[in-house]
Amino acid sequence: MAYATEAIIGVLVLYSVQAINQQLAISLAIVGLIAIIAFSYRQTINAYPGGGGSYIVASENLGSGPGLVAGAALLIDYILTVAVSVAAGVDSILSAEPVLRDHLPNATITLSIFFIALIGFANLRGLRESGSLFMIPTYGFIVMMLVVLAGSLLKSGQVPVHAPLVTSANIGKESHYVFAFIVLRAFSAGCTALTGIEAVSNGVMAFKAPERKNANKTLTWMAIILTVLFLGMGIIAMKLPTIGAGLTIYDSTDPRYRTLIAQIAAFGFGDKSFVYYGTLGFTAAILILAANTAFADFPRLASLIARDGYLPRYFARQGDKLVFHNGIVMLGFFSVMLIVVFRGKLDALLPLYAVGVFTAFTLSQLGMVVHWYKDHGPGWWRSIAINAVGAVLCFVVLLIIAVTKFAEGAWLVLLLIPSIYAIFVAIKRRYNSMTKQLAYSDPDSLPVPSGNLVLITVPRLHRGILQGIRYAESLSNNCKAVHIVLNEKYIPELMRGWERMESQVPLVVLPSPYRSLIDPLLEYIDEMQAKQPGLLVTVVVPEAVSVKWYQKLLSENVTQQIRNSLKNRQNVVVANVRYFLD
Amino acid sequence: MAYATEAIIGVLVLYSVQAINQQLAISLAIVGLIAIIAFSYRQTINAYPGGGGSYIVASENLGSGPGLVAGAALLIDYILTVAVSVAAGVDSILSAEPVLRDHLPNATITLSIFFIALIGFANLRGLRESGSLFMIPTYGFIVMMLVVLAGSLLKSGQVPVHAPLVTSANIGKESHYVFAFIVLRAFSAGCTALTGIEAVSNGVMAFKAPERKNANKTLTWMAIILTVLFLGMGIIAMKLPTIGAGLTIYDSTDPRYRTLIAQIAAFGFGDKSFVYYGTLGFTAAILILAANTAFADFPRLASLIARDGYLPRYFARQGDKLVFHNGIVMLGFFSVMLIVVFRGKLDALLPLYAVGVFTAFTLSQLGMVVHWYKDHGPGWWRSIAINAVGAVLCFVVLLIIAVTKFAEGAWLVLLLIPSIYAIFVAIKRRYNSMTKQLAYSDPDSLPVPSGNLVLITVPRLHRGILQGIRYAESLSNNCKAVHIVLNEKYIPELMRGWERMESQVPLVVLPSPYRSLIDPLLEYIDEMQAKQPGLLVTVVVPEAVSVKWYQKLLSENVTQQIRNSLKNRQNVVVANVRYFLD
Repeated sequence: MAYATEAIIGVLVLYSVQAINQQLAISLAIVGLIAIIAFSYRQTINAYPGGGGSYIVASENLGSGPGLVAGAALLIDYILTVAVSVAAGVDSILSAEPVLRDHLPNATITLSIFFIALIGFANLRGLRESGSLFMIPTYGFIVMMLVVLAGSLLKSGQVPVHAPLVTSANIGKESHYVFAFIVLRAFSAGCTALTGIEAVSNGVMAFKAPERKNANKTLTWMAIILTVLFLGMGIIAMKLPTIGAGLTIYDSTDPRYRTLIAQIAAFGFGDKSFVYYGTLGFTAAILILAANTAFADFPRLASLIARDGYLPRYFARQGDKLVFHNGIVMLGFFSVMLIVVFRGKLDALLPLYAVGVFTAFTLSQLGMVVHWYKDHGPGWWRSIAINAVGAVLCFVVLLIIAVTKFAEGAWLVLLLIPSIYAIFVAIKRRYNSMTKQLAYSDPDSLPVPSGNLVLITVPRLHRGILQGIRYAESLSNNCKAVHIVLNEKYIPELMRGWERMESQVPLVVLPSPYRSLIDPLLEYIDEMQAKQPGLLVTVVVPEAVSVKWYQKLLSENVTQQIRNSLKNRQNVVVANVRYFLD
Repeated sequence: MAYATEAIIGVLVLYSVQAINQQLAISLAIVGLIAIIAFSYRQTINAYPGGGGSYIVASENLGSGPGLVAGAALLIDYILTVAVSVAAGVDSILSAEPVLRDHLPNATITLSIFFIALIGFANLRGLRESGSLFMIPTYGFIVMMLVVLAGSLLKSGQVPVHAPLVTSANIGKESHYVFAFIVLRAFSAGCTALTGIEAVSNGVMAFKAPERKNANKTLTWMAIILTVLFLGMGIIAMKLPTIGAGLTIYDSTDPRYRTLIAQIAAFGFGDKSFVYYGTLGFTAAILILAANTAFADFPRLASLIARDGYLPRYFARQGDKLVFHNGIVMLGFFSVMLIVVFRGKLDALLPLYAVGVFTAFTLSQLGMVVHWYKDHGPGWWRSIAINAVGAVLCFVVLLIIAVTKFAEGAWLVLLLIPSIYAIFVAIKRRYNSMTKQLAYSDPDSLPVPSGNLVLITVPRLHRGILQGIRYAESLSNNCKAVHIVLNEKYIPELMRGWERMESQVPLVVLPSPYRSLIDPLLEYIDEMQAKQPGLLVTVVVPEAVSVKWYQKLLSENVTQQIRNSLKNRQNVVVANVRYFLD
């Protein structure tokens, strides 16, 4: 519950950061949009109690193509969630403590990278999604916001009401552009609130029993809280003296920049008050925790896609530490890249975010329409109608954003989605080809090895080499020891030692005109395999191994060199026999 | 020949960069010092026609302790040679084209790193020490310098002669400190010219036959050229209007900074002349080539030390590409570090340089004294006298630098030399201990393996696995296939496939409660080895291998995981059988 609530409240805050320029009417329209989408998503929860993210709903009902498009869009959006939430959280911190800008060069970027690294590190160390960790900032934020809204509303009765910055009355020459811009900004921002809905519907199985009921309850409460805070902020924003006077600064890198919440809290309680610091503190905390949810969602979605063969199969092993680590590092890396490239400006990041979200939503809603049509249960036409309205609405919003925000960054996402789609398809094709090549329907078609020659490399004589010879003898009667001559003056000593050992294994001495440790061995193997086609060769490399890392620095690591130079040879196996020192 | 000449002329230029503040008398004293050391080094060349660097001379005559101290000092100095030569070359470039400073932030550091990277890269790619590459800048530099000196000397007759900045007449209150500083600066700088002498004596075998004669000829010519250019610059420097008026800038990061050669060339020919640009261009070229010699000397000395067991043995294999690459990367890395830490300022780097050089020289000369004493050939007392004078002179200079420049950086080298010495000794001790542990005087004390169990990992069934099973069967009659259960629903299918194969190898199914791919295998091996002590276990890991790197991204690389988790186990060998796709 805290997980999803905090995700949606996180993005609500995102919205409000950017909501400054908007009118109440647009706020109302967005609340309406959210209500419709939330309502239609209730249906998804009912139909997919086992978890119905856009990828699953679209794949199952529309086919793998649309499913993969939704999957690509969502993978991109998880990266953007991290970048956007952290950047907004940092804006909140810098609003509370502007003095940080004096001490940190590029404060927004520096702090954002710091927090992404912190979250990434916590996840690498295995941070659990504990309820209380998320509960405190979530409830703290809601309570503080209600206090701030109530206080500001009371105060706004005492000051003269300013005219809204943009109304239909004062739309002038450039007004159409300005108005469209404001609408889009609101849409872009509003849609981010919807990723919370995706989170709830994706994670139904994570709720306490009865799962379906609790998920629906969460969704409803989220919508209500969202509406109250959203409308409250919309109303008060228009009464703020700064906004009324057109004095607001939108560039988050400007030292005078304050988030909308900071402006409202300062208006109601003053910017040195406990309420001011408390509100901004909880806001920052909730946003940074919202970024954290993406660190859980990203590997979860990747595992679903990998299970279907469109991502490397090891991503499907969610429990695997290495895979999990790679996912976290990847997510952290790309979100830091976004922060750096877009200099941590929310304005620039939000259009990118919106494209992915609305692509996924449109496909999910469309999938639900098909689902109800196939299902044909009681009231199926009513369900179709609800999801169809949602699908059309989302698609229209997607089109508007894609067209009007194309140059501002939407092109990047519109380019990335098909690229990722192409990678998915290429991976699937490769796996299909591998399966075909590896099919064992006719095991007799595999060539039977004609024999197994075991070679032991003998650079000099010591106990480790002796152990290697014993091992080789235990494997095969067809053993040969191979010495590659780097310095001829050691040969007589080696020969004497070998005779003294009285081994049954013959010693082959290979000259190395260019002092290579490897080439003569390769040539010898070639020669042996040319003489006897189908011969398996096992190269036993004896090695004296030290236990401590600084002792290892002294060893030559010949095994790795031999392994590398043999890695593309058929019918050659390298076995490394270790003798432990100390 | 060009190799050594260019090294000594390179450091001559270094000297002159710093020589600005010195008096003719000090210049003469240093020329005297160089003459004495050069003369006493002729004896080293005669005694060690196979190459007599300080490490060899000190080791053979004084024992391994002093030899290692000389070796440590020289290793440090090669790093400093790169840093110092490149920084001086960059100073020369920036004197010719001061406008570069406007376009590059931290121009000295940036350009120095660029040139170090360039030289390092050229050496990685296998730059040959071709004669002509070094000949052109060397002769070009000598000719240009003679022209500059002649022209400036002619011109200086036409302008009034300024009084030297510091003479015994105008030594005042703070004069003792100032005077000592100047003397030391001159000594520090002068000694750098001596690394060229080390280079000649170290590389006697690289000269054309007759080697000894040619090396001696080179040394003599170097001393003569050195003296002419050195004294010439010393005389003209005192007549420069800037120096006379005390207007010279010593901070090489100051945009108005010009090297002494630049000032002399500008004085004689103007700072827009062909001579001006030509001289500075050749100066920069010769300095950067001087840095290049360290890239050949460093691995050569390391191989000598490694041959004696005081550095990892693989450094002794000079022909080995990997070792050579590591040496170059190490040298490049540390010299860049020096440039960055000391901000590319020659003033700061030269005291460090001097400590190492004079440590090595003192030990080398002392070694020669002992050599002549043991040798007792004709005229041995005369040879002893020459080298003893050299040794005492070098030691006195070393003491002066170590004491007076201690706080300015000499402490760093005085700390590094014993640290490196301690590392040398620790490495030798480790090798001795390894030799003892690996001694095979009593081969029967090695435990004889009680059997060899071959395990094949079988995640699913495909041709690659089949090949692995065939391989395992060829190794031993005691084979078992092991399947680790990650998903129980695949077990029946696997079982059916296994029965259809009609293999003699039994299939062992190991449950994995925590979905680990590795832990159940380790436990099974433990169990088997506990049942039968002395059991060898060979784990055969079949793998389907793709050829292209992007195809490899799809493979799980289980082999590496299994190898890593087994790397500290006695009596376990991993053999990776590859089935090639495509």
